[in-house]
Amino acid sequence: MKVFDKRQIMAALDVEDALARIEHGFIAYSSGAVQVPPVQAFAFAQDNGDCCIKSAYVDGEETFTVKVSTGFYHNPGKGLDSNDGLMLVLCARTGRPLALLQDEGWLTGMRTALAGRIVARLLAPREVTAIGVLGTGVQARLQLEQLLAATTCRKVVAWGRSEGNVRGYAEFARRLGCSVQIALDPEQVARAANLIVCATPARRPLLDSTWIRPGTHITALGADALGKRELDVALVRRADRLVVDSIKQCSRYGEVSGAVNEEPAQHERLLELGTLLAGGGQGRASEQEITLADLTGVAVQDAQIASSVFASLQR
Amino acid sequence: MKVFDKRQIMAALDVEDALARIEHGFIAYSSGAVQVPPVQAFAFAQDNGDCCIKSAYVDGEETFTVKVSTGFYHNPGKGLDSNDGLMLVLCARTGRPLALLQDEGWLTGMRTALAGRIVARLLAPREVTAIGVLGTGVQARLQLEQLLAATTCRKVVAWGRSEGNVRGYAEFARRLGCSVQIALDPEQVARAANLIVCATPARRPLLDSTWIRPGTHITALGADALGKRELDVALVRRADRLVVDSIKQCSRYGEVSGAVNEEPAQHERLLELGTLLAGGGQGRASEQEITLADLTGVAVQDAQIASSVFASLQR
Repeated sequence: MKVFDKRQIMAALDVEDALARIEHGFIAYSSGAVQVPPVQAFAFAQDNGDCCIKSAYVDGEETFTVKVSTGFYHNPGKGLDSNDGLMLVLCARTGRPLALLQDEGWLTGMRTALAGRIVARLLAPREVTAIGVLGTGVQARLQLEQLLAATTCRKVVAWGRSEGNVRGYAEFARRLGCSVQIALDPEQVARAANLIVCATPARRPLLDSTWIRPGTHITALGADALGKRELDVALVRRADRLVVDSIKQCSRYGEVSGAVNEEPAQHERLLELGTLLAGGGQGRASEQEITLADLTGVAVQDAQIASSVFASLQR
Repeated sequence: MKVFDKRQIMAALDVEDALARIEHGFIAYSSGAVQVPPVQAFAFAQDNGDCCIKSAYVDGEETFTVKVSTGFYHNPGKGLDSNDGLMLVLCARTGRPLALLQDEGWLTGMRTALAGRIVARLLAPREVTAIGVLGTGVQARLQLEQLLAATTCRKVVAWGRSEGNVRGYAEFARRLGCSVQIALDPEQVARAANLIVCATPARRPLLDSTWIRPGTHITALGADALGKRELDVALVRRADRLVVDSIKQCSRYGEVSGAVNEEPAQHERLLELGTLLAGGGQGRASEQEITLADLTGVAVQDAQIASSVFASLQR
């Protein structure tokens, strides 16, 4: 088995290849052609930590992947990053471990950002007036980088809880060639932007349904575990299209789960991203529709970005 | 993260330390002090392969463990071993990966053998007339090695499906200082031995209840997945004591699950090994009792043998 570090992995990743594989992975997932065992989760209360293990195999592929990711939120006080992670790539023909990708969680960030790019390409309005971003962390940055490949808009409206962080984010976005307005609150973001990304660890809704302009697309990806949410339930109900990465997972947690639990009929409205990609459902039907994508993260994304990096590292 | 290979791991393992930790692990597991997420399992039909991911954290320990093990049964035709595996040891305070143990499945074999030794020490009759072994593979060998620490008996009656394999096994047992009789069938084993280990991948009962002598202890460890079994349901019913590594798991598969499914009252008779170790249940009550231990393998054993090896490797 070969061991690769984050630097090697970052240098090896072919973003377009990974994107294509992730799209293929979503389609395979929605057609039932992916083995995705239940996520394993640990909680380490004493150190405000968690760990989850996500594994997947896309039928017919040469490899399968086991991902371990951790978040320990007292780490910064110890001089360590909160998040870490690695992926194991194994041979699907012999079971032999082939590669250990010590990406420190970077690949998880990238596959999430690529999912954001995919849904933006499918669902964003034709004319994006401004890209709104809630959150200032690694994921908020990766999302913006990838969105710039999905829209020609270069105007960003950013909001974060910490003034220092949002200024840092604005600098980052300017370096990418964007003009940036710092918003005082999420409402300002909603009033100004019609392509909005929510990338915060919020546990209370940040976006109120009444603020959202017709024609807006919203991608929410912070609610990746029970208890997390960024959107008002009324906004979920108001949205004309609800696209989710996994109907099964998003019925349990994520943004739409609250609405589904209150009103089971909402469940019928959920369209899986892989089904949409395969042409099996209606995406945005007009420039007036509000579209909402809830991305909770599925192991097939990990398997596909890992197989992409692994192929690249072998060349 | 440090990477260790099988040779280093074999050299580092302190068997008595691992044994003590595994006992502690069973006790913690039965008292609810272990996080054990559901096992993740894959099937690779085309290559007759499977993979399972077992993870565990014993509350209060410094590390937790994720184990990946594979069995690809067409591998021998490709010049490869069927089984492979590795364990990841992570820090329970920071989430950082600490060590990759590339044991190729050897630690799984050892922790299973140590569980066999623990139950034999607790349940075997005072006077073992002969050790009976069904199976000739790695696990049948590791079991015998460990049993020799739990009994003074050095007489072995061995049976295997292949004559060549059973001869090889007999040689192995003789090198350990045992006198060995090769049995023509499992019945001969049962008639001669009163400490019997079943270590085969059988899917049909090998041992008939009527063959078993009073006072016998049987450890069965082959039925580690749905569909596998080595013992007659009547034997499970006849046994005076039923000890299992995990009531939850052994109610789903393993030797006792069949009896439990047919007759739910059998469930009440199951005693968990950790409970027995903690003095919370009745083990063998007389030299006439038939005792039966069903070991399906629990991730806490992996976590404990990994922490033992990891501690030893750090010294």
